Amino acid sequence: MSASPESLTAWAAARRAELDRLFETRLATPADGDPGHLLEAMRYSLLAPGKRVRPLLALAAAETVAPVDGDVLLACGAVELVHCYSLIHDDLPAMDDDDFRRGRPSNHKAFGEATAILAGDALLTLAFDWIAEAGERGSRPQHFLAASRALAQAAGAFGMVRGQARDLGEPEPTTLAALETLHGEKTGALFRAALVVGGCAGGAPPEALAAMARFGTAYGVAFQHADDIADEEHSAHAAGARGRLEALVADACAAVVPLGQRSERLVALARALAHPPE
Amino acid sequence: MSASPESLTAWAAARRAELDRLFETRLATPADGDPGHLLEAMRYSLLAPGKRVRPLLALAAAETVAPVDGDVLLACGAVELVHCYSLIHDDLPAMDDDDFRRGRPSNHKAFGEATAILAGDALLTLAFDWIAEAGERGSRPQHFLAASRALAQAAGAFGMVRGQARDLGEPEPTTLAALETLHGEKTGALFRAALVVGGCAGGAPPEALAAMARFGTAYGVAFQHADDIADEEHSAHAAGARGRLEALVADACAAVVPLGQRSERLVALARALAHPPE
Repeated sequence: MSASPESLTAWAAARRAELDRLFETRLATPADGDPGHLLEAMRYSLLAPGKRVRPLLALAAAETVAPVDGDVLLACGAVELVHCYSLIHDDLPAMDDDDFRRGRPSNHKAFGEATAILAGDALLTLAFDWIAEAGERGSRPQHFLAASRALAQAAGAFGMVRGQARDLGEPEPTTLAALETLHGEKTGALFRAALVVGGCAGGAPPEALAAMARFGTAYGVAFQHADDIADEEHSAHAAGARGRLEALVADACAAVVPLGQRSERLVALARALAHPPE
Repeated sequence: MSASPESLTAWAAARRAELDRLFETRLATPADGDPGHLLEAMRYSLLAPGKRVRPLLALAAAETVAPVDGDVLLACGAVELVHCYSLIHDDLPAMDDDDFRRGRPSNHKAFGEATAILAGDALLTLAFDWIAEAGERGSRPQHFLAASRALAQAAGAFGMVRGQARDLGEPEPTTLAALETLHGEKTGALFRAALVVGGCAGGAPPEALAAMARFGTAYGVAFQHADDIADEEHSAHAAGARGRLEALVADACAAVVPLGQRSERLVALARALAHPPE
């Protein structure tokens, strides 16, 4: 029996609240102050209202293996730190030059360019701090090294940063294959890593991790198509994208069938892409 | 019997060559190209002539425990990636706005601001990739998690990034204590982390790691004083700095006495600060 939309919504709300508490606690200003408003700038972007899609996917992957404890939450939260850093740096004047992000001034408009660059650097660095901290406390250090590596590879010179460099440095992609390469680097890599980080943090065995990675890859492409459908500018492509979206959601769900009933949360998250609640 | 200056020079030259080979191999452009010149920009700064002080300290720390293998080299090389990222981002127009770095155009002058920001992001991320990779292969994952955490803490919101935010956001420090806080964050934290990363990669037990960390902290402050002495602008302070430098070098050497004869390389590196060869 799969999870009902209501239970997915309630689960997601509860997990989002846990993530927000984690972020607020960890980025609180210490007694010796906040020179240059660095922590304030980090909080400004990290605690902005958001769907927390990536850490929720990581938590759902972890839950296929074990109950979520504080260390699993910390490792899954690290995925959101990397997402948040990438938004801050992508918005910079030298990059996409966006003055607004979800209706609020972007980080550099609110805090200045220097602080925005530093806030991004600090969020990226903190992600690896959290995964290492969670791994040091537990009894499965190898799993957390694997999580750290998956996240670094998704974020770095052959993942998100490469995608951003390609986007800035090359002409607009003109073929579907070129467009999917770009999306795979810019956004897909982190979805895949979210699943691997969550699976590793939960303690998944290799075959289960491979299934989760396949789910993450399909989810990432599906997410992009769902985004295109929601975006009216691309409405000419919406019909084709709808069919491709349904197929990718089915691929994602099929990948985690071998994980059994505990994969129901992942399945519900994938289905919600094609059929958003409310 | 302590190492002669000649043997230190030869050792350092051999280790630098190994590091350069590592950097060249790992940052080679793959068959599918280098979109946006990202890897070229990373190589431009990472392979610029440099003393490699931080990875040499890490390697000397590792050598107090075990012979250096490829994984130890990889983890110690990660320290230089973090140093290199910090130079690229610090030079940006929004930060210190430096057009030159050691007589060559700074990264953003050579490649543009966007690519420089991305090259820094990618180098920082790669450091955690390398430490995780080295740890995944070996039989002491816990040590490499500790290395990753030490590096993240030195680099992040309570280390180097905090120092840079303080430098940009607050008035010039007017007391020695305030100046040493700033230097401790901006440069000292990474020296200390270099020792801990090297010690962890080598497999040092907790007491030895603590001794290495003390060495790194003293070395970091000593390095700053040596820098001030070399810098003619600060010649008024040079006499006081010289006495403080000698004392800090002695502190650093005393910290690693319990490690026995294998600490001779660390001792020689510290002494070279007060009495540079040639």
